[in-house]
Amino acid sequence: MPHDNPATCRVLFQPSGLKTEVPRGATILEAARRAGVYLTSICGGDGVCGKCKIMVNEGEADAPPTTLLSQKEIREGIVLACQARVRSDLVVTVPRSHTLDTGRILVDSDAHRFSEMAGEDVGQGAFPFDPLVRKLHLTMSPPNEQDQLADHERLYLAIRKQYDAPHMQTGFRILQQLPAILQEAKYDATAIVAQRGDVAEVVDVEPGDTSGCNHAVVVDVGTTTVVAHLVDLASATTVDAEATYNSQMHFGDDYIRRIMYAEEHDAFDEMQHRIVSDVNDLIQTIAMRQGIELGCIASVICAGNTAMIHFLLRLDPRRIRKSPYVPTAGWIPPIRAAEAGIRINKRGLLYCLPAVGAYVGSDIVAGVLATRLDEAEGLSLFIDIGTNGEIVLAGEEWMICASSSAGPAFEGSGVKHGMRAAPGAIERVTAREDGHLAWRTIGDEPPRGLCGSGLLDCLAAMLEAGVIDRTGRFTNPEDPRLREGPDGLEFTVVPARDDREPIVITQADVANLIRSKAGVHAAIEILMQTTGTEADTLASVYVAGGFGNYLDVTSAVTVGLLPDLPAERIHFVGNASIGGAKMAIMSRQALAKAEELAGRMTYFDLMNHPDYMDAFTQANFLPHTDIARFPSVRERLAGTDAGS
Amino acid sequence: MPHDNPATCRVLFQPSGLKTEVPRGATILEAARRAGVYLTSICGGDGVCGKCKIMVNEGEADAPPTTLLSQKEIREGIVLACQARVRSDLVVTVPRSHTLDTGRILVDSDAHRFSEMAGEDVGQGAFPFDPLVRKLHLTMSPPNEQDQLADHERLYLAIRKQYDAPHMQTGFRILQQLPAILQEAKYDATAIVAQRGDVAEVVDVEPGDTSGCNHAVVVDVGTTTVVAHLVDLASATTVDAEATYNSQMHFGDDYIRRIMYAEEHDAFDEMQHRIVSDVNDLIQTIAMRQGIELGCIASVICAGNTAMIHFLLRLDPRRIRKSPYVPTAGWIPPIRAAEAGIRINKRGLLYCLPAVGAYVGSDIVAGVLATRLDEAEGLSLFIDIGTNGEIVLAGEEWMICASSSAGPAFEGSGVKHGMRAAPGAIERVTAREDGHLAWRTIGDEPPRGLCGSGLLDCLAAMLEAGVIDRTGRFTNPEDPRLREGPDGLEFTVVPARDDREPIVITQADVANLIRSKAGVHAAIEILMQTTGTEADTLASVYVAGGFGNYLDVTSAVTVGLLPDLPAERIHFVGNASIGGAKMAIMSRQALAKAEELAGRMTYFDLMNHPDYMDAFTQANFLPHTDIARFPSVRERLAGTDAGS
Repeated sequence: MPHDNPATCRVLFQPSGLKTEVPRGATILEAARRAGVYLTSICGGDGVCGKCKIMVNEGEADAPPTTLLSQKEIREGIVLACQARVRSDLVVTVPRSHTLDTGRILVDSDAHRFSEMAGEDVGQGAFPFDPLVRKLHLTMSPPNEQDQLADHERLYLAIRKQYDAPHMQTGFRILQQLPAILQEAKYDATAIVAQRGDVAEVVDVEPGDTSGCNHAVVVDVGTTTVVAHLVDLASATTVDAEATYNSQMHFGDDYIRRIMYAEEHDAFDEMQHRIVSDVNDLIQTIAMRQGIELGCIASVICAGNTAMIHFLLRLDPRRIRKSPYVPTAGWIPPIRAAEAGIRINKRGLLYCLPAVGAYVGSDIVAGVLATRLDEAEGLSLFIDIGTNGEIVLAGEEWMICASSSAGPAFEGSGVKHGMRAAPGAIERVTAREDGHLAWRTIGDEPPRGLCGSGLLDCLAAMLEAGVIDRTGRFTNPEDPRLREGPDGLEFTVVPARDDREPIVITQADVANLIRSKAGVHAAIEILMQTTGTEADTLASVYVAGGFGNYLDVTSAVTVGLLPDLPAERIHFVGNASIGGAKMAIMSRQALAKAEELAGRMTYFDLMNHPDYMDAFTQANFLPHTDIARFPSVRERLAGTDAGS
Repeated sequence: MPHDNPATCRVLFQPSGLKTEVPRGATILEAARRAGVYLTSICGGDGVCGKCKIMVNEGEADAPPTTLLSQKEIREGIVLACQARVRSDLVVTVPRSHTLDTGRILVDSDAHRFSEMAGEDVGQGAFPFDPLVRKLHLTMSPPNEQDQLADHERLYLAIRKQYDAPHMQTGFRILQQLPAILQEAKYDATAIVAQRGDVAEVVDVEPGDTSGCNHAVVVDVGTTTVVAHLVDLASATTVDAEATYNSQMHFGDDYIRRIMYAEEHDAFDEMQHRIVSDVNDLIQTIAMRQGIELGCIASVICAGNTAMIHFLLRLDPRRIRKSPYVPTAGWIPPIRAAEAGIRINKRGLLYCLPAVGAYVGSDIVAGVLATRLDEAEGLSLFIDIGTNGEIVLAGEEWMICASSSAGPAFEGSGVKHGMRAAPGAIERVTAREDGHLAWRTIGDEPPRGLCGSGLLDCLAAMLEAGVIDRTGRFTNPEDPRLREGPDGLEFTVVPARDDREPIVITQADVANLIRSKAGVHAAIEILMQTTGTEADTLASVYVAGGFGNYLDVTSAVTVGLLPDLPAERIHFVGNASIGGAKMAIMSRQALAKAEELAGRMTYFDLMNHPDYMDAFTQANFLPHTDIARFPSVRERLAGTDAGS
């Protein structure tokens, strides 16, 4: 018996040929980690993301039932690596697609956008290319009896020949190792020099010329989604990107609930551990995919809402949720990334963009930086729609900002077939003449669900097609586009095909989406009302958020998310948090500007505003109780049931 | 038997009443440390300094023979605590004198000198009082819903109301603890703010007003002697001082031997441990004596020769002794004192003054700063005589410096009855009309030996009295002032009295002292020759060193240590290394000036100069082979045997 049922099993991964042994009963995901095979696992092994599909070619693996695999896949021997347990020696095949494509597709389109707007073109744009971290290749003459300059001063002199650094500092451990490094390298070495405010710190010194390998990770630490981009600071380009759900989601959808949970269960360490692990997983994924050693990543820059940044750094976030609603810090000095548990070069630095306050975080400051809202002519508006909706209204001399709770519906959470913007997500939906819908997925992959932009398009299309009325209710239970599903009536976006379930939108989904857009719209309305601004005087509206790579402005206006303005005044800017943070890591001047902006933005407390709830209630219609505010929508809906 | 001979013994210390238990056989010094009773122990427990005298009132302690106690003391039950081993339960009495007086006497006179010259009067002198470390008492209004500034920014705002700090930084651990500290303290707190270059770092935040307690330790890390002063930065005064022999002396008298030893025995850690322990012992001694907690000491500033600073910080000193003779660092950034093992406030900083190079250390830069040599009119000379003799010659536009190996004779080492400048040291010797000598000791204590200034006076007096000739040889073995001692002929300075041995100078001592002064004089000569300077054009000569609190300029000229100049042009400035370091900790501008000076001082390599050995040989006379260079000495010696 023990012979047939060994305590440890061998697992061979194809096509890499990597092998390992694991205890019988371990998951294939564990085996993969041990073997050094990277499998995408967005949900962290909870069996809910369906990303870690793997094919079992030989041997036996127990896999529990799942709806994430089609019957065809199951027949082919495909299992979820995080769920399937090793029962015997195995030979498994890792599909090429999911080790590579996921990230690559997102990057290509994303990098494209940021090359137009911020990121790598920082040098041609508003700010000079002047990165926070430089790798300087130094060829020094070795000391001799005619030139007895100390190693440390010799290093400084060589650095200053290439880089204007009036104030310098050296890590003590580096100073201790310096003679050995320089002598071994025959005084041909590379210094990693990182700015801490006005001081340039020699973070590390490496033998030879490693200046070509200077990477930074740019992270948007969102409540629902965590996104990381890898930037090559040597060539000023974005190399790769990856995203994952924030694994704190187990403890609550929004950050207020998570702070409460952490406080009740003394779980601040656990909260930090989760988000730091998410960031580390993203970094490791990208580094492995690109074949880059962690030592080559000398900096991380983070933007995010204030609570997330507090969790990440284990700063006390408790008074963010209770009076007087203050953070521990809005401005956070650069620290060693290792101090926060983030694994890059062990002496590398972690930068955080500055926040305005408890409810307007560094992600919003990054967005204002990326869109250069402070330099826009006339009135302009910046809207970032994530789990919260933050709004910045800028005049030529002032900037006022506010936050509303949007909920994570547009990030694909709390919606039955919602998903984040990843391959297979339906990102665009249009009504065909036959009344049915046409759709397009990210990466042209088979559809797996709907991301934010797709959901918004659906909502607009359903309204225009009369499937729902302006309150969001299904108008006619007998409508052939509807069907009775397990959660009541549902609208079919993608019919069942092969062995796959149909992709649908339920009545509850519609209500969630309307609530989300209403929160944002009400915030815009109160901010404009308070500043005496009329919607049609807005010269520019910038919309940022995790909708995906694309947002249909007409749909956003149709459902009443955005004010009814000519389409050319509305600009979708994608993940502006990443965009602004990327500008800051690439330009000291951009970081300095971000600090100035954070100081100039005035926070406006919506929640205590007497009219906010009214405005929210009125916005709980499509597009709004008062359709006269949306003349273009009224026109489009004329003749439909909704228009009446 | 075991009953009469217990494995552990109790020791009660009077008058404090502190008790402890130690294993039988432990020394009383160990028992004192365990009980928290501080006993002065300059030699670190080697039984050579005679400082740790203690009286055994009850019980039995084994003490080996020693010449450091008089028979009267032995009869009274006095033992050396470092040598006496506990054999039974003991009651011992700690004499009041040696826990208190030692330091106090040195301080009083020393503080006096520095209040005239540098240190506390830095504010009235060349530099404004602007200490590197400040404790700022901050009374902040707690946040409320109308004032939601983050704790960190609130702290910065409060600091900037009192202190001009455009660039600030906060330690990450402090940031994490900040909300708890501020809330507990009801926003009434004290920030310790330390300059790191242009950046003001918030080193710590303490509840309430602790601004009155802001101490710094100023350390001169010498090859033979380590001196520490405690400075109260709140009141800008020197509070106390203490000195000890460098316990690396076991590994060689000079730093070149110690580097060789460390290299051969891989003993760099041990070297660091020794010197760090010396510094920690000094700090602890002073802190206990003054009743100051280590947490109140937020900074340490060190000056010393380059090798000592390298040992202290565990920087590689190996190429200081071999070609190309370069240090690891001349300029050392501020680090956390704890990183080097120095025990003060656990987040406190360690500053080092900058050095010129391998052989001209930060002690010399400190001396140039203290004497403001760079601002002197005309030609001036700075001489620091320690284990090495360093010389700086300054014109109005230039400064050139050199180092010669003087040997530790003037610090009391390598001379039979030499000792460092401590209570009981004969610091001044004059010839009486009867041909015998009059002397004065530090603290007017019974004489225990001769410090540098006393030795110099003796040498001059012996020459003038014809006891020695100009080669240093005893002229007449029958001279009644000489006697045959265990080491050959010796000159009696203090005859035997009570049970004490006489204090004498041997023929070998004379030779050692002449070699020391010859090294220094030859260095001066070569430097002046190289720059085409005549001795009589020197407007000022500043002499620094561990001679004691006093130096007789005429004696120094008589033996040929200094050029023959009018006495009013020669200034004895004591421990200028401590003086300059004290200026730097009290004034950012002084530290900046030190950095500028270190950059401006040109190192001149004496050892490879073809004429140096000749000059040294010629200086191996009293005052010199060519007495014509010393007209005043020739005149004084006229009519004596030596003058012929």
